Amino acid sequence: MNPDGVAAIHKGAMRILSEIGIEFLNPDAVEILRGAGCKISNTNVKMDEDFVMEMLAHAPAQFTVTPRNPQKSLVIGGPYMAFGNVSSPPNAWDLERGKRPGDFETYREFIKLTQFFNCIHFAGGYPVEAIDLHAGIRHLDCLYEKLTLTDKVVHAYSLGRERVEDVMEMVRIAGNLTPEEFESRPHMYTNINSVSPLKHDFPMLEGAMIHAKRGQAVIVTPFTLAGAMAPVTMSGAVALSLAEGLAAIALLQYINPGCPVAIGTFTSNVDMKTGAPAFGTPEYMRATQMTGQMARFYKLPMRASGVCAANVPDGQAMWETSNSLWSAVQSGTNVVYHAAGWLEGGLIASPEKFIMDCEVIQMIQRYFDPMIYATGSDDIAVDAIAQVGPDGHYFGCQHTQERYETAFYDPLISDWSNFEAWQLNGSTWTAERAHKMYKGIIAEFEAPPIEDSVRDELKDFAARRKAEGGVPTDF
Amino acid sequence: MNPDGVAAIHKGAMRILSEIGIEFLNPDAVEILRGAGCKISNTNVKMDEDFVMEMLAHAPAQFTVTPRNPQKSLVIGGPYMAFGNVSSPPNAWDLERGKRPGDFETYREFIKLTQFFNCIHFAGGYPVEAIDLHAGIRHLDCLYEKLTLTDKVVHAYSLGRERVEDVMEMVRIAGNLTPEEFESRPHMYTNINSVSPLKHDFPMLEGAMIHAKRGQAVIVTPFTLAGAMAPVTMSGAVALSLAEGLAAIALLQYINPGCPVAIGTFTSNVDMKTGAPAFGTPEYMRATQMTGQMARFYKLPMRASGVCAANVPDGQAMWETSNSLWSAVQSGTNVVYHAAGWLEGGLIASPEKFIMDCEVIQMIQRYFDPMIYATGSDDIAVDAIAQVGPDGHYFGCQHTQERYETAFYDPLISDWSNFEAWQLNGSTWTAERAHKMYKGIIAEFEAPPIEDSVRDELKDFAARRKAEGGVPTDF
Repeated sequence: MNPDGVAAIHKGAMRILSEIGIEFLNPDAVEILRGAGCKISNTNVKMDEDFVMEMLAHAPAQFTVTPRNPQKSLVIGGPYMAFGNVSSPPNAWDLERGKRPGDFETYREFIKLTQFFNCIHFAGGYPVEAIDLHAGIRHLDCLYEKLTLTDKVVHAYSLGRERVEDVMEMVRIAGNLTPEEFESRPHMYTNINSVSPLKHDFPMLEGAMIHAKRGQAVIVTPFTLAGAMAPVTMSGAVALSLAEGLAAIALLQYINPGCPVAIGTFTSNVDMKTGAPAFGTPEYMRATQMTGQMARFYKLPMRASGVCAANVPDGQAMWETSNSLWSAVQSGTNVVYHAAGWLEGGLIASPEKFIMDCEVIQMIQRYFDPMIYATGSDDIAVDAIAQVGPDGHYFGCQHTQERYETAFYDPLISDWSNFEAWQLNGSTWTAERAHKMYKGIIAEFEAPPIEDSVRDELKDFAARRKAEGGVPTDF
Repeated sequence: MNPDGVAAIHKGAMRILSEIGIEFLNPDAVEILRGAGCKISNTNVKMDEDFVMEMLAHAPAQFTVTPRNPQKSLVIGGPYMAFGNVSSPPNAWDLERGKRPGDFETYREFIKLTQFFNCIHFAGGYPVEAIDLHAGIRHLDCLYEKLTLTDKVVHAYSLGRERVEDVMEMVRIAGNLTPEEFESRPHMYTNINSVSPLKHDFPMLEGAMIHAKRGQAVIVTPFTLAGAMAPVTMSGAVALSLAEGLAAIALLQYINPGCPVAIGTFTSNVDMKTGAPAFGTPEYMRATQMTGQMARFYKLPMRASGVCAANVPDGQAMWETSNSLWSAVQSGTNVVYHAAGWLEGGLIASPEKFIMDCEVIQMIQRYFDPMIYATGSDDIAVDAIAQVGPDGHYFGCQHTQERYETAFYDPLISDWSNFEAWQLNGSTWTAERAHKMYKGIIAEFEAPPIEDSVRDELKDFAARRKAEGGVPTDF
């Protein structure tokens, strides 16, 4: 978009906030915003541009989230791009077992994949729901596994105060932190979604406000499907998404000025014939890019996703996912949710897809290595070209010998052999090779080190909270 | 690259041309360049920067190629992006028959696919080699089919004077043109490759010079695999590729100043463990982007490709092809060769892959539709957002009703249904759906109209030339 386009979307978002207003379905949030001078009518909150922009000015353009292993700290914002696993599918699918409901053992497998791949920087929500665990205690078992099988940044679902506070306590224990140390800087994050159009629900706002008060990071990601819960035009869907997102961020900045936040986008379109959501479409890519321009305008870190509508890890899955991941690159996205493992519009987590996505992510990360587009005189290599001349080849020359080990991207499961060699190797399609790698990773997985005392304290905390009955499940 | 990077690659290419020189393995070309004042030593030709830049200044930044159906005219250069079918694989592969040598019937099938898809703008080289036709007469039968089954721009292989002249005559007949009309503007094109490093061979130069003399288009595409026939560093491979390409373009512009040319890139890398070529890698993407910047610097139209190393139309095939096609977009490529149907590094043509690639190409074309990132006040839709409010949905509102038919990309073989509906439809993976569509297109194909007299004249010409013995095959 040119500057006029940016100004037009900004103006649209501000008109939505000031003239139409956002429903805050949380009385505490409404009272806070009333105190801030917003216009309130029951749950409807209207904010004017001055207030919103004043609040946004508090938000940091870049911040760091420090997990129990500080070497896995996550910088969010600026030139950085972080990738996380698929989050929240109720089902799993793999080549061997087909589609089935998520369970705790499968959850553990995905957490191991999340830890194994260096290209995955943080653990998102549950990579698959552990349906076999009661919802009242699921977070305790799941976080115990997440905090012991990985040492990367973790996440809390904003599904009620008790869950959020349990997760915070477990992250504090895992990091061996005092409550003061925990609150002194970000150690975890939550992601909240608005209920588009124009609404933020009670538990999401509650969780976000707890995070903001305690200095933990909040990503606000409206879920605006153009043509369904958002306008059929992409800039309309983006304007609505921004209005919803900025409203929540303004609230959080009023509560704790300077608290770490990011604006997310999850704007795509539906198939107008069936209402089915589509992902990785040209419209999705443009919406992501437009949101990226707006995030830079507001100087906020930005979140996008790696998504597809495909049901199995096939060609469609990879062009849709490639489109979404590359649009994250093009939009200047800082945090890529669902970057590995997503199928069926987020209803399926697949280990084969996880590994296939990791190949794409690794290529994106390599793409950013300045080495491959360096133009120093050694790179341009006129001397080597003179030396090899018209009849030689470059395999053996000194210029190649000095560089060949790191000159090129090293593939993960791509098979670059010719057809006959590929046939001798079993004629495996990509998903089959990924399946084999997945089994190997799980079989040989080694958890990162953790002090026994910390592990015991985490275990005790989870056991005690389970004994106390877990958390309410009447959501 | 920043301007310093562009200057460094330019300087490298000019040093290669002036200090190292290019081998022109064609005595006519050498004599012409001697006459132009280049430094000659046997087949080695050294050109200085002033000469090269003076010649490049003659080349048009944009030109039009007019096929027998002028409505399918192809604008090459400027903001235009044209896509063509895969060219020259010796083998075919499909889900039913596996890998097998190319034959004339399969060639005809791919020509039908080329004609069928509107997203494919021109017919490249033979989409698969018709191995069952003798090489001395193959071009006559293949061009007859190409000129009657399609009405899009076609290509001549620069494999000997006779072949090129036969194809030119057939294109002239198909277009119902006098020889003067034929030469008055471009009606066809050839693509030549250098023999990297640093060589142009006899027949390619001969074909290119015939095209230039008769005002037909020439694309010059060095094939520089970094680490094998080019430096292991990408900017070195790009500098070598440019030097080779610019040398041929300088020759052609000296022969016929202002003749239509384009500079191609086919720079990728090899797997340093096996020597196997890799495609669609991060290095490939960066090399394509760098070449695009240089093509803009030289004000030349640019050619790139849609390529992969994968052997079957699976996930890997689609991430590699997506990477290459999107890097064509990012580099400002004007002509995309091999855009549909390529497998196994160009050794296989696949109809399933052809259709899968067409989906990606259609998405790229849709991506450029300004409608999807328009920011007029109707697009931002604040009134519709007010009207739907927090409790409605957008399916039925007036703003959606007025736009839903064209608002979103309409998929070709993507299945956006959920898992259960997908299962009911036969649990087909993308390649299977593409296979079914391929069979349907071939079964129902209708050739574009052609005048009987023109068809007869083409048929007679091919029959006569075959009776005369075709062309020499001692290449």
